[in-house]
Amino acid sequence: MIRVILVEPEGEYNVGFIARLCKNFDVDQLYIVNPKCDLDKAKQFSAKGNTFLERAKVVDKLEDAIEDLDLKISTSSIADSKGDMLRKSMAPWEISSLIGRRQVGLVFGRESVGLTREEIAMTDIMVFIPANRDYPVLNLSHAVSIILYELWKSKVNENRISNDMNVSS
Amino acid sequence: MIRVILVEPEGEYNVGFIARLCKNFDVDQLYIVNPKCDLDKAKQFSAKGNTFLERAKVVDKLEDAIEDLDLKISTSSIADSKGDMLRKSMAPWEISSLIGRRQVGLVFGRESVGLTREEIAMTDIMVFIPANRDYPVLNLSHAVSIILYELWKSKVNENRISNDMNVSS
Ligand SMILES: Nc1ncnc2c1ncn2[C@@H]1O[C@H](CSCC[C@H](N)C(=O)O)[C@@H](O)[C@H]1O
Ligand SMILES: Nc1ncnc2c1ncn2[C@@H]1O[C@H](CSCC[C@H](N)C(=O)O)[C@@H](O)[C@H]1O
Ligand SMILES: Nc1ncnc2c1ncn2[C@@H]1O[C@H](CSCC[C@H](N)C(=O)O)[C@@H](O)[C@H]1O
Repeated sequence: MIRVILVEPEGEYNVGFIARLCKNFDVDQLYIVNPKCDLDKAKQFSAKGNTFLERAKVVDKLEDAIEDLDLKISTSSIADSKGDMLRKSMAPWEISSLIGRRQVGLVFGRESVGLTREEIAMTDIMVFIPANRDYPVLNLSHAVSIILYELWKSKVNENRISNDMNVSS
Repeated sequence: MIRVILVEPEGEYNVGFIARLCKNFDVDQLYIVNPKCDLDKAKQFSAKGNTFLERAKVVDKLEDAIEDLDLKISTSSIADSKGDMLRKSMAPWEISSLIGRRQVGLVFGRESVGLTREEIAMTDIMVFIPANRDYPVLNLSHAVSIILYELWKSKVNENRISNDMNVSS
């Protein structure tokens, strides 16, 4: 089970696009912590993902969005600062093997200031999407698209493998 | 050399986000064929990728954006229709090995109707990003982010390999 969790998103276009991406990559749930934008306006951008907006669970604090999860994964455009263990990161393609049958939450931060250190500390793992060293800061919904694509890819590959096994047995 | 080519983009947010992605993933050139939106308004969304907007080459027809290229790659959310050889597609992770020192163009279509059959026929290869069979149609700039991320990943891996070789030699 995969839950996408947005912490205080500020742009309706981002929230709308993320709802669409939840449909594109068959996410199970969308949670929004204390939205700072108008979720109704987000519908302009969600296309056939609008059901995710309608059913999105809005909560007050990050705690309320993660307390029932087995594995909490945060994301940040700032990774592996020297001597800062909190920021030690994994790559997007390294997390899919950890998911299995777990209840997993993917936590994305504010457009302006990302996640706080306290919020990152509430998660088990931090993921950094490798990009241009001069400017690795992706727009929020584009970071979401890359993580969901990577998880989808590994799901498709698993199905292919288990189908192959069915055929040969 | 990687050139991103947008054919008649309709949304300024998409064009702006794509300029930002060009910077995030160190693309060489951005070409825009007959834009249907206001490129000045796109600057609101391009953040530190605004130089790509300022230097974007605007042309009238797709031909003018691809004639000097070695390898032309189109993208579509409709792939592998039965019996339609034009639509036989490759996956994003399959194209990186084809790039090498070639001059490569990545061609993306209109938000409303994608690329025409004639435009796809002008390219050598078509790429389809695997996604939910019920709704594999990504928003334009999110499709761009996934393709550029895949190409970046393979570039990083190549560098890692050649650095390893330097170390061991
Ligand atoms: N908290 C939530 N936020 C948004 N959509 C939700 C949701 N909980 C359920 N949904 C809806 O329910 C659908 C997925 S529910 C789980 C589907 C899963 N693949 C399975 O079969 O087990 C989505 O399409 C979405 O529209
Ligand atoms: N390279 C990258 N890797 C992982 N997540 C990223 C990313 N670039 C952006 N994001 C995601 O997009 C969100 C908004 S970008 C936040 C940028 C902010 N200036 C900061 O100080 O962090 C981030 O919180 C993260 O969830
Ligand atoms: N799954 C996918 N794989 C590859 N490219 C995609 C994609 N989803 C969207 N795109 C890109 O995003 C552009 C806009 S989406 C176009 C959708 C349109 N309804 C159509 O008939 O095609 C497409 O032209 C393509 O360049």
